[in-house]
Amino acid sequence: MSERTPQLGSGEILCAEIITIGDEILRGEIVDSNKALMSERLHDVEVETRFHTSVLDHPGEMADAFRRAVSRADVILVSGGLGPTRDDLTTEVLAETFDRKLELDEASLETIRRFFSNLGREMSENNTKQAFFPQEAEVLANPVGTAPGFMLEVEKGEGRVALIFAMPGVPRELSLMLEEQVLPRVLRRMNHGANPNGGRAMRARLLRTFGLGESSLDAELQHFARDAEMELGFRTAFPDNYLRPVVRAASAEEAEARLEEACRHIRDHLGDVVYGEGDETMAAAVGRLLTEHGATIATAESCTGGLVAEKLTEIPGSSAYVMGGVVAYANEIKAAQLGVPEALLEAHGAVSEPVAAAMAEGVRERFRTDFGVSTSGISGPDGGTPEKPVGTVCIALARKGAETHVERFVFPLDRIRHRTLTAQVALDWVRRSLLGIELVGPSLLRRRGGAAPPAAGGDRK
Amino acid sequence: MSERTPQLGSGEILCAEIITIGDEILRGEIVDSNKALMSERLHDVEVETRFHTSVLDHPGEMADAFRRAVSRADVILVSGGLGPTRDDLTTEVLAETFDRKLELDEASLETIRRFFSNLGREMSENNTKQAFFPQEAEVLANPVGTAPGFMLEVEKGEGRVALIFAMPGVPRELSLMLEEQVLPRVLRRMNHGANPNGGRAMRARLLRTFGLGESSLDAELQHFARDAEMELGFRTAFPDNYLRPVVRAASAEEAEARLEEACRHIRDHLGDVVYGEGDETMAAAVGRLLTEHGATIATAESCTGGLVAEKLTEIPGSSAYVMGGVVAYANEIKAAQLGVPEALLEAHGAVSEPVAAAMAEGVRERFRTDFGVSTSGISGPDGGTPEKPVGTVCIALARKGAETHVERFVFPLDRIRHRTLTAQVALDWVRRSLLGIELVGPSLLRRRGGAAPPAAGGDRK
Repeated sequence: MSERTPQLGSGEILCAEIITIGDEILRGEIVDSNKALMSERLHDVEVETRFHTSVLDHPGEMADAFRRAVSRADVILVSGGLGPTRDDLTTEVLAETFDRKLELDEASLETIRRFFSNLGREMSENNTKQAFFPQEAEVLANPVGTAPGFMLEVEKGEGRVALIFAMPGVPRELSLMLEEQVLPRVLRRMNHGANPNGGRAMRARLLRTFGLGESSLDAELQHFARDAEMELGFRTAFPDNYLRPVVRAASAEEAEARLEEACRHIRDHLGDVVYGEGDETMAAAVGRLLTEHGATIATAESCTGGLVAEKLTEIPGSSAYVMGGVVAYANEIKAAQLGVPEALLEAHGAVSEPVAAAMAEGVRERFRTDFGVSTSGISGPDGGTPEKPVGTVCIALARKGAETHVERFVFPLDRIRHRTLTAQVALDWVRRSLLGIELVGPSLLRRRGGAAPPAAGGDRK
Repeated sequence: MSERTPQLGSGEILCAEIITIGDEILRGEIVDSNKALMSERLHDVEVETRFHTSVLDHPGEMADAFRRAVSRADVILVSGGLGPTRDDLTTEVLAETFDRKLELDEASLETIRRFFSNLGREMSENNTKQAFFPQEAEVLANPVGTAPGFMLEVEKGEGRVALIFAMPGVPRELSLMLEEQVLPRVLRRMNHGANPNGGRAMRARLLRTFGLGESSLDAELQHFARDAEMELGFRTAFPDNYLRPVVRAASAEEAEARLEEACRHIRDHLGDVVYGEGDETMAAAVGRLLTEHGATIATAESCTGGLVAEKLTEIPGSSAYVMGGVVAYANEIKAAQLGVPEALLEAHGAVSEPVAAAMAEGVRERFRTDFGVSTSGISGPDGGTPEKPVGTVCIALARKGAETHVERFVFPLDRIRHRTLTAQVALDWVRRSLLGIELVGPSLLRRRGGAAPPAAGGDRK
């Protein structure tokens, strides 16, 4: 890049648009996960994606989308429509829209020919099409497929340009081209002073919470200062809620420091409702704490049917602390495999505090672990009684050297969500126990007696 | 709808645009699968989605997107931005863009209040916002969440209108509102003569397959006649592949008959690789067959860690045939809880055919069931040896009155997919056993010895 490199962007943070092309996307035949991948990687290099657009394999609508993107974005990622068939139109339409001729690139043609001969096949004539590119385009190699991509620099007026990257739609090919060809080119342009914003930095972090509803979280954080430099995003991923502080600052150091401060502020207000950061799931957080304490666990599940064990063992390395568990769906199994006294089952029924406690204690004893966790409930849709309606569940945690904790809840949710929430409460109790903090249920849902428990974060400020 | 109903669409097939809103989408934090769902369902009722657009929670960009959609589409589905927090702006921006005042809907406020009181909670003040709608909007009930949706009719000029439907972004809420509120309204308008295409019928069905890769399925079905009236869609949903025949005809009866014929043709060619239709999962198919045979099952899981039991018990009513299971993660547990002889564990190791067989037989005996199914493998990322590399897994099925079936596979997949595929093979064996057909592994993956087994569907034609 020389000093003559035209300016990319308008002086703010670089703005991107992602355009994916293909009838199959608009018909809903595929979930277009390429967009999330591209957005995430752009976000990582501090380019802000402002628009996602998908259009049919239709020249007029493709051209409209390309023109609009150039008018409002600095970096434009296009995927799809580079294949050999008649309905693959991206290259032609880009060339026509931005007044370029199509030119054959001999090197690309040779590469495509070799790709086929390596597979022991003859190149079909229509693959020749994939070696044509708009004039002045820079070819982007595709080592895992036949369709090379390309970069096109387009004038936006006022001495500024936009960069258009055309990539194949096959996720594996796109992913590799994005990493190896596209992002390095974007970064190079950002770092060559072509963009006065090259110095500005953005930092973000995902904080994972469990136990408070979205509006309660929002209320708890109402004094959190928000402006153009400091955003706070909310997202629900049942049964969790995620918070995402995003900070912009003049330097990476300053952004990092302000983000750290924001996260501290949030944790101070919400306390242990924040259980993890980034991609650390509840089961991973529990696993980390069990490992730190050198403790072991076993599960005794009725209504969750294996979900708690499944979540715990999904984590790599979990065999160090998970001994195993029993899915005790039938009452005979609760008695035979967990040693729950028949008399207890008869007196209180399977969905009761005494039985849940006996299950947790039974599995802890038989599996010789530090923790034993149990669930017994009615996830529905059938099986409720006036006294124990559908949604009733008893959860128990048996612990070495401490009393067994057991509670009854009513979660008025469908079967899947009932199981999901029950499993998360069980795991959260193990986490809370290891942290030495109060075992509370989710405030979003009713506890026995009808009164909501105190907001898990609200009473500790 | 009276005769005065303004015309929807321009006389061609109705055209739709889908707009999803939310910073989390543009940052790539979530894969926005709502768009595929909405497109697919619109396609089913013969509305053609021509544009997918996603924008940030940014009033100006949202307004631009809404205006553009009205200029080029007849039906506009908007999802996201209906929550109670400050960054939920859809209602306000739609009202402002199309010059409507916001009005409180008392009935909705009451419904929201009741939603919270049913949960034993007080409604937070910011939820009031969710009971305001643009003037003349039609409220769309949300029985599973706090955010009602709404429909807004907007003039396009020349006596034509566009329908805008605003829905929550939570997939479960959106899905229900789409089916029960949105599609019926679209169909009602189409059937009132506003759309000449109203008379033609379309029928589609989802066939779920397991055991053959997408290209093998395609090859098996190469003689399946496809034209404008008969499409065949493919979709991968690991570890399954779905087929979707779509038929168009002059009448509903004819479409139904042709669809039935197409499904029969597909089943004839693929045989028992097709395990279910519509939303019947593998576990549901197994449950249906166990119920039909009055048979019971128990699980003994090592590497899948509870996943098989979890899938079986996810099905409502599964307590009739699932007795329970053991998650035997540690070797001590395999011995103590399943009666696997210590000598067997020492001689062959936990990941071996004899141990897997002993686990399946042990759980079947102890839980007194007709079937016992087991898994023991190395899902990774660590724990492999030269002899038993990461990905090795032994699966066994013990059956009343038949020999135990056990096989070793190597599935070269990441941990999550390794567990998912292993669980699906185990369930498929129960299904195959109940149907009295051969127990085969997935042909897409290598079996011990390296040779692929015969294509599950290919050798029975």
